[in-house]
Amino acid sequence: MKGLLFVVSAPAGCGKDTILNELFKKTDTAGYAVSATTRAPRGGEINGVHYHFLTREEFESKIAEKEVLEYTEYCGNYYGTLRRSVNDLIERGKDAILKIEVEGAMNIRRMFPEACLVFILPPSWEILEKRLRDRGTETEEKIIERSKQARTEIEFAKNYDYLIVNDKLDAAVDDLLAVLRAEKLRRSRNDELLNAFGEEDKA
Amino acid sequence: MKGLLFVVSAPAGCGKDTILNELFKKTDTAGYAVSATTRAPRGGEINGVHYHFLTREEFESKIAEKEVLEYTEYCGNYYGTLRRSVNDLIERGKDAILKIEVEGAMNIRRMFPEACLVFILPPSWEILEKRLRDRGTETEEKIIERSKQARTEIEFAKNYDYLIVNDKLDAAVDDLLAVLRAEKLRRSRNDELLNAFGEEDKA
Repeated sequence: MKGLLFVVSAPAGCGKDTILNELFKKTDTAGYAVSATTRAPRGGEINGVHYHFLTREEFESKIAEKEVLEYTEYCGNYYGTLRRSVNDLIERGKDAILKIEVEGAMNIRRMFPEACLVFILPPSWEILEKRLRDRGTETEEKIIERSKQARTEIEFAKNYDYLIVNDKLDAAVDDLLAVLRAEKLRRSRNDELLNAFGEEDKA
Repeated sequence: MKGLLFVVSAPAGCGKDTILNELFKKTDTAGYAVSATTRAPRGGEINGVHYHFLTREEFESKIAEKEVLEYTEYCGNYYGTLRRSVNDLIERGKDAILKIEVEGAMNIRRMFPEACLVFILPPSWEILEKRLRDRGTETEEKIIERSKQARTEIEFAKNYDYLIVNDKLDAAVDDLLAVLRAEKLRRSRNDELLNAFGEEDKA
């Protein structure tokens, strides 16, 4: 059985990176479909692990070759998903997990109606803002901007298949693991299995 | 949040009783919605645990009072689901698990479109027949009859939401646990959650 394509989105401060890091410690049936970007690597970021770092020319030639499934331009840099990143995993029977923002997720849904979309929510606006403040890395102005951005993003959550509230990290990771496992069992994804029973029957 | 209603069906020999017994050892978020019957208890069967044992008159008066969600008559006895068995669990926030055959499951689906239906499959016809033989409790004629019955029942599997192949017991139990957990996270079951974010926003 081929792997499935999962999209995970969440506003900043909802802990999606932490959830995914913990998830990959607990399962080997899923892999991270690394995004591509033209922005420069930040300290500690490894090419092919955190992002595929491409030049603008490389990125644009991949767009022209239809090798980019979805992309967006943000602050003068491209961010997108390479077809190969997804296919490499799926063909090996692994689920591909794409961590992308809401607009990209909607594009993936249009291209792959069978993709499964998961949205991670904070327990409340109040807790989201507290978490952003507790990071201690951003100005109050930036925090308010991010919180406003989160409000816009949550509007898209109604188009997702699953909602996970990241209240306790362990529970959120187990929720996502359950989604990965259950989604593969859906009847709508297993017509071949039922057909096999019918054919074996005729044999 | 109220509990959800899950229906579990499987042909004889697919191990649904064993799966459910193991499941209830591993979770306390779900409970077994005990069926009612007019047949006599067999050795070891406890009233209220394995079945609610009712007289024919009791059963028929419950039908008249619309206290029976679905029922069937088989070999001169009624078998059915009491509304109370389901509601007692759901109102306490527990998922109610109904173990019923395919026709009953289709009736539940009509009455409760939001119910989640899980069908348990054997790994193959061959293994199903081997398992029936290994029980050593039934004649070859009875085994062929049960196998034929299984073939009819599997025709209904296409109307279920999830398919679980009971190849290894532990994996099948974990599959069912994942379905219980993931199904609660489906966006379509969590409109209130998203509305709460919208309202908190306006407040």
